[in-house]
Amino acid sequence: MLGATVSPYGSRSKFEKAVRHVNQNTKVPLQEASSRTPLHDTYGIITPSSLHFERHHGGVPDIDPATHTLTIHGMVDRPLVFTVDDLKRMPAVSRIHFLECSGNSGGEWRGGSGETETDVQRIHGLTSCSEWTGVPVSTLLRECGADANATWVLAEGADACKLDRSIPMNKMLDDAMVVYAQNGEPLRPEQGYPMRLLLPGFEGNSNVKWLRRLKVMNQPAMSREETSKYTDLMPDGTARQFTFDLEAKSIITRPSAGETLHGPGIYELTGLAWTGRGTITRVEITTDGGATWTDAELQTPVLRRAHTRFRWTWKWDGSEAMLASRCTDDTGYTQPPLMDLIKIRGTNSQYHNNGIQTWKVASDGKITNGNRA
Amino acid sequence: MLGATVSPYGSRSKFEKAVRHVNQNTKVPLQEASSRTPLHDTYGIITPSSLHFERHHGGVPDIDPATHTLTIHGMVDRPLVFTVDDLKRMPAVSRIHFLECSGNSGGEWRGGSGETETDVQRIHGLTSCSEWTGVPVSTLLRECGADANATWVLAEGADACKLDRSIPMNKMLDDAMVVYAQNGEPLRPEQGYPMRLLLPGFEGNSNVKWLRRLKVMNQPAMSREETSKYTDLMPDGTARQFTFDLEAKSIITRPSAGETLHGPGIYELTGLAWTGRGTITRVEITTDGGATWTDAELQTPVLRRAHTRFRWTWKWDGSEAMLASRCTDDTGYTQPPLMDLIKIRGTNSQYHNNGIQTWKVASDGKITNGNRA
Repeated sequence: MLGATVSPYGSRSKFEKAVRHVNQNTKVPLQEASSRTPLHDTYGIITPSSLHFERHHGGVPDIDPATHTLTIHGMVDRPLVFTVDDLKRMPAVSRIHFLECSGNSGGEWRGGSGETETDVQRIHGLTSCSEWTGVPVSTLLRECGADANATWVLAEGADACKLDRSIPMNKMLDDAMVVYAQNGEPLRPEQGYPMRLLLPGFEGNSNVKWLRRLKVMNQPAMSREETSKYTDLMPDGTARQFTFDLEAKSIITRPSAGETLHGPGIYELTGLAWTGRGTITRVEITTDGGATWTDAELQTPVLRRAHTRFRWTWKWDGSEAMLASRCTDDTGYTQPPLMDLIKIRGTNSQYHNNGIQTWKVASDGKITNGNRA
Repeated sequence: MLGATVSPYGSRSKFEKAVRHVNQNTKVPLQEASSRTPLHDTYGIITPSSLHFERHHGGVPDIDPATHTLTIHGMVDRPLVFTVDDLKRMPAVSRIHFLECSGNSGGEWRGGSGETETDVQRIHGLTSCSEWTGVPVSTLLRECGADANATWVLAEGADACKLDRSIPMNKMLDDAMVVYAQNGEPLRPEQGYPMRLLLPGFEGNSNVKWLRRLKVMNQPAMSREETSKYTDLMPDGTARQFTFDLEAKSIITRPSAGETLHGPGIYELTGLAWTGRGTITRVEITTDGGATWTDAELQTPVLRRAHTRFRWTWKWDGSEAMLASRCTDDTGYTQPPLMDLIKIRGTNSQYHNNGIQTWKVASDGKITNGNRA
């Protein structure tokens, strides 16, 4: 029997059901919410755009790219307004980079938030990785003649809450981009269509979506999202502010909590590692809760500030196991045990958890969250 | 006004209209047809799965992955049957590779096929690039105990025409994979769901989709698709057979035929280069029809047997121009002028055109196919 015809724009098989997890059990409206990538059901390092995690503060605006503009002003010689077409005519770069919400894995600070965070998607699904294309911010700032004394740039979105964040000028001149494409096609609406700020390795919230304005300044704006939110309240009552760089982190995505192994045998163990500081150099695996560690294989190419896929072949003998990964980056930093983080930072804040995640494998094959086991 | 809520599975903006080109002006049914990637409207090196080119011989079968199997038999110690779940438990690899139909750009052999091939999508859109995940064929052949004297493997699909091709054993033991995922999610139906053969750098047709059988042999099967089709008829009446390796090729995708430049000024010139033989080492640009050439910038990482994005900043003075790119790979081979290919290979066959593509820019900015100008 002949199959289906060719088609203008394809879609996935009807047999595939993986979706972003949307927590419905919440008091906030679903415009001010998150959805999480099904990490246990993704492959390689590219996250499908349809499954890239979301975190919005005022919903996804419906923007006509023909009317959207980016204004650059403040401490500049020439304030300029750029259309999407203007950006597309400028020298572009494409880079594969992860994005992670600083609230990812946040429930684990306090021992997990119960029934809503029971598997790798619900606990750690606020990280994704795409190939992004756009214009270096340094090019745009040069066009405008940014003042050499400027030290910060305020980035503002065109969403309902006009989300804004202050970004250090040195990041803007390093590898920051205004991106208009993701995984080969125009940016998705949930990712800031028609343009967003991309700050490789910086916490997700600072990568302002639906970008409409950059104001060059000599101090941070102290906006809502960098004072009452996205600061880390420490045990002594002070708060860490502007914790932009996401530290080295890794997660075993398969096998992971929620799955049940079908008896002893050989299993492909795989996961993702990343670091906002640079490049992953090593991932180690333990099956005995950290007593012994063995190196995993890193999928090449290992890219700077991108998800890195690791793999390890596990021969499970059927006895109880405590599975975990830990990674090291090219600054020499190694991902710490969660309890070591808690000793220093307490549990007031739910941000910036890059601690080791342990999965407990019972002798019947059932896998659960082993962080407090 | 609040925007849209978070959602389980995203889609692109309603303002984006890029689609695969389906040639409706054809006598063959649309199950035995092709659709072409909008190369002028893609970015970076990843092709969105929804816009990956198609070429089917019996339509797209609707396969339940729970019942699909891959059988390996013939010159093996242990014939084996693998389910999709079996493959997913085996050690996997992910690699970014292009796929190109050997008929891509075929109309140019005879001076273009008229109105149907007037832009970069219609002429060259049978090439795409994805991150593929699967199991090395070498692993599967080792499991089955393939005979050391075997020299070929017949690969057969589960589509209506049971498309089959004979593949040299040395390719199967090199970098061939049975892949089940593409760009982070399960393989798309048009790309062979739930599993296909991937032969990096080999002509598209040999990368058998909906793979259901591998037969280990000591000679090729001389099937329909490697005798009456997919052979190159030479001027002397003989035919080149088993021309698997796709030679180095590059295309300027923007600006390109069908576009009109809006007056003199600076333009971002970009395109794609690839080679089935290995890695692209150089791309050069001419604006004067080949009299002078200048090096373009290659986007890193430059990956083996993958699309390589190149960029070049063009200052157009408003006079007539003949734009073209040519690439060189790490074997030292440089993409030839189309006329040099025709001198040797004639115009009997439409396969394997990797000649230089020239775009003619008129003084009013209108861009047309310049190959015969």
